Amino acid sequence: MASESGKLWGGRFVGAVDPIMEKFNASIAYDRHLWEVDVQGSKAYSRGLEKAGLLTKAEMDQILHGLDKVAEEWAQGTFKLNSNDEDIHTANERRLKELIGATAGKLHTGRSRNDQVVTDLRLWMRQTCSTLSGLLWELIRTMVDRAEAHAVALTRDSERLLEVRKRINVLPLGSGAIAGNPLGVDRELLRAELNFGAITLNSMDATSERDFVAEFLFWASLCMTHLSRMAEDLILYCTKEFSFVQLSDAYSTGSSLMPQKKNPDSLELIRSKAGRVFGRCAGLLMTLKGLPSTYNKDLQEDKEAVFEVSDTMSAVLQVATGVISTLQIHQENMGQALSPDMLATDLAYYLVRKGMPFRQAHEASGKAVFMAETKGVALNQLSLQELQTISPLFSGDVICVWDYGHSVEQYGALGGTARSSVDWQIRQVRALLQAQQA
Amino acid sequence: MASESGKLWGGRFVGAVDPIMEKFNASIAYDRHLWEVDVQGSKAYSRGLEKAGLLTKAEMDQILHGLDKVAEEWAQGTFKLNSNDEDIHTANERRLKELIGATAGKLHTGRSRNDQVVTDLRLWMRQTCSTLSGLLWELIRTMVDRAEAHAVALTRDSERLLEVRKRINVLPLGSGAIAGNPLGVDRELLRAELNFGAITLNSMDATSERDFVAEFLFWASLCMTHLSRMAEDLILYCTKEFSFVQLSDAYSTGSSLMPQKKNPDSLELIRSKAGRVFGRCAGLLMTLKGLPSTYNKDLQEDKEAVFEVSDTMSAVLQVATGVISTLQIHQENMGQALSPDMLATDLAYYLVRKGMPFRQAHEASGKAVFMAETKGVALNQLSLQELQTISPLFSGDVICVWDYGHSVEQYGALGGTARSSVDWQIRQVRALLQAQQA
Amino acid sequence: MASESGKLWGGRFVGAVDPIMEKFNASIAYDRHLWEVDVQGSKAYSRGLEKAGLLTKAEMDQILHGLDKVAEEWAQGTFKLNSNDEDIHTANERRLKELIGATAGKLHTGRSRNDQVVTDLRLWMRQTCSTLSGLLWELIRTMVDRAEAHAVALTRDSERLLEVRKRINVLPLGSGAIAGNPLGVDRELLRAELNFGAITLNSMDATSERDFVAEFLFWASLCMTHLSRMAEDLILYCTKEFSFVQLSDAYSTGSSLMPQKKNPDSLELIRSKAGRVFGRCAGLLMTLKGLPSTYNKDLQEDKEAVFEVSDTMSAVLQVATGVISTLQIHQENMGQALSPDMLATDLAYYLVRKGMPFRQAHEASGKAVFMAETKGVALNQLSLQELQTISPLFSGDVICVWDYGHSVEQYGALGGTARSSVDWQIRQVRALLQAQQA
Amino acid sequence: MASESGKLWGGRFVGAVDPIMEKFNASIAYDRHLWEVDVQGSKAYSRGLEKAGLLTKAEMDQILHGLDKVAEEWAQGTFKLNSNDEDIHTANERRLKELIGATAGKLHTGRSRNDQVVTDLRLWMRQTCSTLSGLLWELIRTMVDRAEAHAVALTRDSERLLEVRKRINVLPLGSGAIAGNPLGVDRELLRAELNFGAITLNSMDATSERDFVAEFLFWASLCMTHLSRMAEDLILYCTKEFSFVQLSDAYSTGSSLMPQKKNPDSLELIRSKAGRVFGRCAGLLMTLKGLPSTYNKDLQEDKEAVFEVSDTMSAVLQVATGVISTLQIHQENMGQALSPDMLATDLAYYLVRKGMPFRQAHEASGKAVFMAETKGVALNQLSLQELQTISPLFSGDVICVWDYGHSVEQYGALGGTARSSVDWQIRQVRALLQAQQA
Repeated sequence: MASESGKLWGGRFVGAVDPIMEKFNASIAYDRHLWEVDVQGSKAYSRGLEKAGLLTKAEMDQILHGLDKVAEEWAQGTFKLNSNDEDIHTANERRLKELIGATAGKLHTGRSRNDQVVTDLRLWMRQTCSTLSGLLWELIRTMVDRAEAHAVALTRDSERLLEVRKRINVLPLGSGAIAGNPLGVDRELLRAELNFGAITLNSMDATSERDFVAEFLFWASLCMTHLSRMAEDLILYCTKEFSFVQLSDAYSTGSSLMPQKKNPDSLELIRSKAGRVFGRCAGLLMTLKGLPSTYNKDLQEDKEAVFEVSDTMSAVLQVATGVISTLQIHQENMGQALSPDMLATDLAYYLVRKGMPFRQAHEASGKAVFMAETKGVALNQLSLQELQTISPLFSGDVICVWDYGHSVEQYGALGGTARSSVDWQIRQVRALLQAQQA
Repeated sequence: MASESGKLWGGRFVGAVDPIMEKFNASIAYDRHLWEVDVQGSKAYSRGLEKAGLLTKAEMDQILHGLDKVAEEWAQGTFKLNSNDEDIHTANERRLKELIGATAGKLHTGRSRNDQVVTDLRLWMRQTCSTLSGLLWELIRTMVDRAEAHAVALTRDSERLLEVRKRINVLPLGSGAIAGNPLGVDRELLRAELNFGAITLNSMDATSERDFVAEFLFWASLCMTHLSRMAEDLILYCTKEFSFVQLSDAYSTGSSLMPQKKNPDSLELIRSKAGRVFGRCAGLLMTLKGLPSTYNKDLQEDKEAVFEVSDTMSAVLQVATGVISTLQIHQENMGQALSPDMLATDLAYYLVRKGMPFRQAHEASGKAVFMAETKGVALNQLSLQELQTISPLFSGDVICVWDYGHSVEQYGALGGTARSSVDWQIRQVRALLQAQQA
Repeated sequence: MASESGKLWGGRFVGAVDPIMEKFNASIAYDRHLWEVDVQGSKAYSRGLEKAGLLTKAEMDQILHGLDKVAEEWAQGTFKLNSNDEDIHTANERRLKELIGATAGKLHTGRSRNDQVVTDLRLWMRQTCSTLSGLLWELIRTMVDRAEAHAVALTRDSERLLEVRKRINVLPLGSGAIAGNPLGVDRELLRAELNFGAITLNSMDATSERDFVAEFLFWASLCMTHLSRMAEDLILYCTKEFSFVQLSDAYSTGSSLMPQKKNPDSLELIRSKAGRVFGRCAGLLMTLKGLPSTYNKDLQEDKEAVFEVSDTMSAVLQVATGVISTLQIHQENMGQALSPDMLATDLAYYLVRKGMPFRQAHEASGKAVFMAETKGVALNQLSLQELQTISPLFSGDVICVWDYGHSVEQYGALGGTARSSVDWQIRQVRALLQAQQA
Repeated sequence: MASESGKLWGGRFVGAVDPIMEKFNASIAYDRHLWEVDVQGSKAYSRGLEKAGLLTKAEMDQILHGLDKVAEEWAQGTFKLNSNDEDIHTANERRLKELIGATAGKLHTGRSRNDQVVTDLRLWMRQTCSTLSGLLWELIRTMVDRAEAHAVALTRDSERLLEVRKRINVLPLGSGAIAGNPLGVDRELLRAELNFGAITLNSMDATSERDFVAEFLFWASLCMTHLSRMAEDLILYCTKEFSFVQLSDAYSTGSSLMPQKKNPDSLELIRSKAGRVFGRCAGLLMTLKGLPSTYNKDLQEDKEAVFEVSDTMSAVLQVATGVISTLQIHQENMGQALSPDMLATDLAYYLVRKGMPFRQAHEASGKAVFMAETKGVALNQLSLQELQTISPLFSGDVICVWDYGHSVEQYGALGGTARSSVDWQIRQVRALLQAQQA
């Protein structure tokens, strides 16, 4: 009889389950990642049961002790799964029963896998958010040390991650399968035990919503979009034609066929992961679309997405930090890439400062560019006379326009390229970093 | 000569532009939605120019007056586009020049379309967020009045919309094309003029990031996921087989072939829009992926997505509000759909209360379900003797288990189905509503 | 020195590789699935080298023999990976060298990992297409045996799978890293050895395009969309309110909390996988978007997507076949769900046959529906007099309209519901099935 | 009374429809694109009705004549929509009735909007496929004339488009709303009238499947991926640092702020559209996921996606053709970008030809690259003695390795870079082009 198989829902089935179906249904291959938080959640729940009078103090202690043993086995790699352990919750409770006997059967009173799994996942993700936040700030810090503009985008990612974490950090335990908890469990006690920031408002919503997962996956997608753009910049700057920067050997690979080739594989992989991560976000949203209320097994798709994306983000952030911290900047090549035509806007501003409306000045400067191109000379090699055929406002002081450093220093408004402005930007990000660490 | 064509960048091109390319490039067909915020942004900018000494007070007044006229023409529907108006910024400045002459040419001093367009878009979206937030709360209020559980998910959408709005509400003006503003424009003054909450930190980032667009599109996607689930529930409950609810004729349509058919088209359309809205989000993220830093024309894809999604959300929220407020609830049909086997969990809890560990109780209850099925009777028609063959703990008071109202009232923990808990939930959402209106 | 590490591209790097980068870069964790086709491809290539005079007959034999040994080790589970085996190609060649010595170093002559990996992947996917095609037809056959309408959609999936397979079945080997093969290898020989249908046209395209992967992932996405719709139908028909069908216990699961509950988990999981599979398709397309020509490491994302989607499709098709073949149909419940108002269109056709234009007839029938609703009776309980107040064309023979069987038999045009038409449809699908097996 | 409003399903509703709902529901704003195919379909259907004896010859002629008038009004821009025309089908039939009176009411006999709309859409898309196929081949022809490698990917797009067209070209008319046609309409006659290749097999599937739409959108997405990659290549080659190619002014635009700037906007827009098009594909698939069988209003999302994507593809293909045909190639800059280290693989092959196993040769060449880097000289400036410290196989003839032309000509295998191979590739694509035109 099926009830002998030890499945949690085993009391009434008489048919055998198709083995392909069994595997299709099982989540233990990946949800074992949750072993620690599952124990943590169960310990809190047994305290709740004791307070509600559903466990005696002795029973609770027995369960707590047993759960500690279960955790110890996982930590030491000695936990043995058996073939009926379809998920981590079943496995842990099965093992608890082996360790402490019938009292284990009281642990699940008033709880459902529906509220249990989502509590576990939230606990796990809360920890992941902290880890990723640390790695993200390590990358930002590295960028700011090297004055990389992409840091600013990442500070927004950090802000968003905190917001997502806030919504992850809400306790669903005590919502049961769908209708709530009928045995007077004190959800406020559970919240405090597990250090959640709030409790969920409605039991149907609590067990069936996966907003926090979708938000996390989208957070990662947007962050990866930023990193894909940074990677694209650096791949471009790494080309022989640009040669603005050089990747450390530690973040390059060679070609199995071309001995001279040094590929920016770290950057190409970072760029590529934007697709993978977004694919998970797209997949989850499609899975959620049009689902009826309350728990549907479709929701089981949430965990693999979360685990894979967490791993990817962790690796990407660390590799990116390594790439940036070891990147060689070829300042002289950057210098050589400058050319006078880049100063055409400055030439227009020169005329603006002499009183010409901008639109006219822009057109005049355009004519100078065209004249230089036609004559086959650089823009700064046009003679004063030539410039004066375009506008009589040009005079000898136009020579100051051709200084690149002067040009950069012009952009003194907040956010611009002047040294003072860049210093201000760096200070702003450093202040965020300090606030974050506090 | 091309410069005569009046294009803003017209000074140097000699070749003609392919007309298909011209149409491909032009955005005026949709960015005319921005007319009002474009004028608003230009008025603020002219004040900034005056303070920086680049416009005299008289010139500024002339420009302000001219811009008001431009706005008036748009408002009255008398603004005439001409064939060279490739975008709203060109159109408005062209018209300003016609109205006030050469001074108009000073307005764009130190500004670029790059910072102009993103300022306009942020102003437009800030207003949209407020509108949508109002519509969302109208829907939540309606749901709470009718005690619809889906309201809780929507309160999270409201919270997220506020966060998105906060990041929309940051001023990029003064970032120029890429390097910032070289003419001493006071960005703090611009911020105050346009009532932004903060200013962007870095000019390259400010002109090339579209996080706020991606976030808005994702916000809408997640909100639509919720509404697609609500729609699915109601479509199901509308079927003849369920008949739990009935849609008002105002939100149904008939069949051109089947006279008796009343289709829940409003709900099916709401459900379908989840796909469209998410498609826009997916499209934008793919467009952003791997773009090099600073402005790329690819970013022009942002606006149609925002306009379409805003319109869709506005319609969906209003139709959903109409649907919910006119929905007829068939309480008696819901009552008839109840059946004793739904009380199997209660039967298990009965045994738990008598001291049986939950796992055993769950199995015992499962056996009772199986016994009833085998005998072809309802679960509550098993005799006490029959139940006692399963467990001696069953006694006469088991009869209380079969009361549905009693069952619902059991779930008294926060978030559950007991009347007291539902009242608490409603109070919580109403408190949020009041906080929102304050 | 790094060259001692045994990496294929090891000759020139002096810096150590970041271990996180090493893991980030390595694909061996998943591309080991390719072991068999990698050996197969290398065997063919060594034959090509021999014909081109780059290997002696003896060297070729030595290599072929060594590769057979490598395959044997994989097949028997005795192949031991070492820590420098970053991918399956490196691993196999490293092992070959251990087995046969320096001659192994000749195998890669003129070949690159770029053409090697894509050859392997195509070989693997060709096999997968055949397997999935078989499973798909097993499902179609089961459906046709049970006369399930969803089979028709699946026949299109089968047609598309053949088309995808045709484009998979094209040989890229001999394209080198990017420029082709410089040593006179006969690609036609390689094609024949590996039984490909054609050879790729251009070496740059051959190594950098992943159309066949994108097509396969989209094929799977569309097929899953069909199965998600079938699942939705059946989930609906399984509800207590419909009770049209009953899922076998072998494809249901119970609730850990609610003993009476029997969840259609197999169907919910099938439905959910539509999201996952599409997510992989979306992810790959985003990864491909905007990549420069020729091989980029970004392309490494292709394999995990293919492996995961293949596994998912295989499981889904088998579970769906099991579900359909064991599904119980409750014909009597379906009969009870019929109601006279469903015959309103037939009532209109009755009037059409009496000569009334359809639009009028439709409106007349609508009035009858409304009259019946108003009077609170079933449509077929309206008296002849009552009907005649709507149209004088109604006469005693209207009674024939109320026969459901007669109604179904009316739809005799090809594709309709009449028995003769359904038989024709089944014959059509069976003919496709036979053509497929031939 | 609502029936007076003229809605096709108007006979029974008494409530008024919410005006926002009315707009939300209406599709006339975009489905008017279908006017011509709607008339075409209705003409065929009236011939079917005549053959089935449901119209007299005179009635049919009246309808055909009336429909020609309707088409004429659309063609001349004189067709006037009124506020009750919710879709093109309603509008055309309403107008027909005004023109010919009550006989118009017979046209819809046995037809439903469900089979009508999908017939119209298929007719429209069939034409679009032909148009896009022509534009695609125009682009391929242009590329081949200029020997652009990207043409090969586009030949696959052409092949796929034909396959999609084949599945579009199947007649659904005669499927009614869901159950088929009850009045003996000859679907084979309808097929022949409308020149479809086949008829749909099952009426439920025919009215509810949108595979052909999903396939078309995915076809466009994959084609856009190719064009995004081509665009990326060219954007890169356009940069000052590369300067391999120069875009015609006709496909560039300038900056409103920087007079010297010439932006490759045509290419950036092409690249960006990959996101938009894929977004539509993603959106449709999400809309389809989990829909129950038979027509759901959700399917109304199909048309805007098709229209927008068709327009986008048409513009993109034409702009791309213009870009390629006017592109200037800077051969001398490409020549200058060559450097001896690119010949490192050739150096390895030199050793291979002298008998060294490839792996050793690859390592030896790698050492030469490292030696040159260390000494700060170009690879071809290493002296023979220096090379001989790496391998004694180097001798005087190594000098031949340093010839770039010789290097390119080496890759003589099919698909490689040798002139003979490139000529072969061009001949292959030209042959496809001719086959296509035949």
